[in-house]
Amino acid sequence: MTNTSVLNTGIRNARNVSRYLYGQGAIVDLAGIIANRRGTSTAPAVFFIDSFFELHGLPQKLDAVAHDDHVIYVDTINEPTTDQINLLKNQLVKVCKETPCAIVGIGGGITMDITKAVSNLLTNGGNAEDYQGWDLVKVPGIFKIAVPTISGTGAESTRTCVMTNPSSGLKLGMNSDFTVYDQIILDPDLTRTVLHNQYFYTGMDAYIHCMESLNGSYRNAIGDAYSDQTIRLCRDVFLGDAMMSDENRAKLMVASYLGGCAIATSYVGVVHPFSAGLSVVLGIHHCVANCIVMRAMEQFYPEGYREFWQMVEYQGVAIPEGICRDLTDEQHDRLYESTVIHQKPLINALGENYKDILTREKAKEIFLKM
Amino acid sequence: MTNTSVLNTGIRNARNVSRYLYGQGAIVDLAGIIANRRGTSTAPAVFFIDSFFELHGLPQKLDAVAHDDHVIYVDTINEPTTDQINLLKNQLVKVCKETPCAIVGIGGGITMDITKAVSNLLTNGGNAEDYQGWDLVKVPGIFKIAVPTISGTGAESTRTCVMTNPSSGLKLGMNSDFTVYDQIILDPDLTRTVLHNQYFYTGMDAYIHCMESLNGSYRNAIGDAYSDQTIRLCRDVFLGDAMMSDENRAKLMVASYLGGCAIATSYVGVVHPFSAGLSVVLGIHHCVANCIVMRAMEQFYPEGYREFWQMVEYQGVAIPEGICRDLTDEQHDRLYESTVIHQKPLINALGENYKDILTREKAKEIFLKM
Repeated sequence: MTNTSVLNTGIRNARNVSRYLYGQGAIVDLAGIIANRRGTSTAPAVFFIDSFFELHGLPQKLDAVAHDDHVIYVDTINEPTTDQINLLKNQLVKVCKETPCAIVGIGGGITMDITKAVSNLLTNGGNAEDYQGWDLVKVPGIFKIAVPTISGTGAESTRTCVMTNPSSGLKLGMNSDFTVYDQIILDPDLTRTVLHNQYFYTGMDAYIHCMESLNGSYRNAIGDAYSDQTIRLCRDVFLGDAMMSDENRAKLMVASYLGGCAIATSYVGVVHPFSAGLSVVLGIHHCVANCIVMRAMEQFYPEGYREFWQMVEYQGVAIPEGICRDLTDEQHDRLYESTVIHQKPLINALGENYKDILTREKAKEIFLKM
Repeated sequence: MTNTSVLNTGIRNARNVSRYLYGQGAIVDLAGIIANRRGTSTAPAVFFIDSFFELHGLPQKLDAVAHDDHVIYVDTINEPTTDQINLLKNQLVKVCKETPCAIVGIGGGITMDITKAVSNLLTNGGNAEDYQGWDLVKVPGIFKIAVPTISGTGAESTRTCVMTNPSSGLKLGMNSDFTVYDQIILDPDLTRTVLHNQYFYTGMDAYIHCMESLNGSYRNAIGDAYSDQTIRLCRDVFLGDAMMSDENRAKLMVASYLGGCAIATSYVGVVHPFSAGLSVVLGIHHCVANCIVMRAMEQFYPEGYREFWQMVEYQGVAIPEGICRDLTDEQHDRLYESTVIHQKPLINALGENYKDILTREKAKEIFLKM
């Protein structure tokens, strides 16, 4: 076999989301899609919905929910843990008399990842931590539908769902073809109410992971094409005059989906490992953590660095600063360990001997720039 | 009822190819993929292979074929007919003791379309002409795998398979979610032996249908993103110095796939209806017919026209000329009828009253420019 066995375990043969429905107001079609799943059965549908919408309501009245369905609002203060997934799964097993006919995630990366994990767990049994890794899920999950309400992470199109095991500290998803959504509904009306800074942080996740891919050494023409188009769309949005106009929200929703597709056959680079360090040690959310890391990335990605800060300035976005200034040596040690553990992306960016470049001192220096 | 095979309404919820495997030499993985389908069964696999490879061999020895499998070489002199599909289906019913475990198409648009149609027919029964139209296929076909050996049509990623009914003259595909491939293998090594002109004609199918989409009035952000990236890749390939270098063949294979995805949520325009006229009345193959039509498209697509002819010149490609010069009035009448029948694309390009623009005289004038 000649080349680019690009990815770690077994993602050479990429699984697509089965169906995507795109359009302003497309969420109204959710009712019909779930009705098809119900058929003549009495099995309920389950809805995980970002708790923001409990307070503020969705743009369209959600007439997809039937009498016996279960709606669970998801608090997004913390990123998902295995304990939380197990709890949600056990709760559903208790209240659902039948196996659900569908499970729907309406929200951002956290909500979409929880939906994926619970879907897998309901049919595979056991606990979430049993499936952290690659291709450990054995049978298809419950039919799952994503309705993203913020754009950027690509959780709607990837084969993973990130979660942390609080006992072991392991932050790792259920990487599996069975984790990919059966249906996604891309309705740009749903991102209208996202807060300015959050819209930027999350959108930049797509930009950053594609920028890392295109600068890596493991490349292939299809991953490159997805990354290239994602970056162009992000440029239109974040170097344009109204990043949250109808047109730009539509573009960013597409960028998020295509950026997720790009991940299927490519690797990230230096940003994501450092960002993971910030998340694991300091509990900082993934997307804002990426942006913070960009403070120290000029040496690795000079062009991406320049463009990123141009976008920040253009959109008047606040990126937290100085967050590693007062950390202890022990905290810096943990930051280092939880960064260099990400071998594949760091090899992609820096080569096999990446630890010669990213020494403990060098990593500390980088964290101090944030 | 009869308009183009390309688009109609019910495609809002787009079905993706289930899995794609990309890479130089990736065809070697075909054996493993089929082995998974066989499992412990003794059901054979069926291979439709472009007859070119009977003479010249595939770049990799095709060790995917087992003893009881059926290999059928496909002659690509003419585009598929319903009679041909029925014949192939009946032949397989006769020789296969069990329902095949998989059906593989190795070739260009013709071979890939035949594979789709026979796959549907083997499980749905009846004749090919029963399923010409929209969503008439009732159950999934045999698990089907495409291995394109030329790039451009996007047959590997679309939900149709074009065929002509010789009795009725109807050229229309089985437009159905069940027509979409379960697996595609994108191996750019396989396009190495394509002839210069044919490589150009077929590649330009992707460029042209995306150019038409982006100039139409029915637009959406996801179709636009696919079209935009497809056109960029075509520019790299056809305005580059070696359109058939390893890198450019890889890019064109990706462009073909993404261009097929673009079709899922968008319409073509003026080129494809005129091209269909040439195919139906004069029997000219689809891709070269598109290129011939471009001789007369300056008024509708001035920028696309300019860029197309720039590419033709740059690559030193021969485009047939003067093919409508000596036609009878009756032939011109038939050309007109088989062009204006394509309502949706023509409305997309010219508006509801497209027949006011495309009068019989105007159409003749356009055909005479070719």
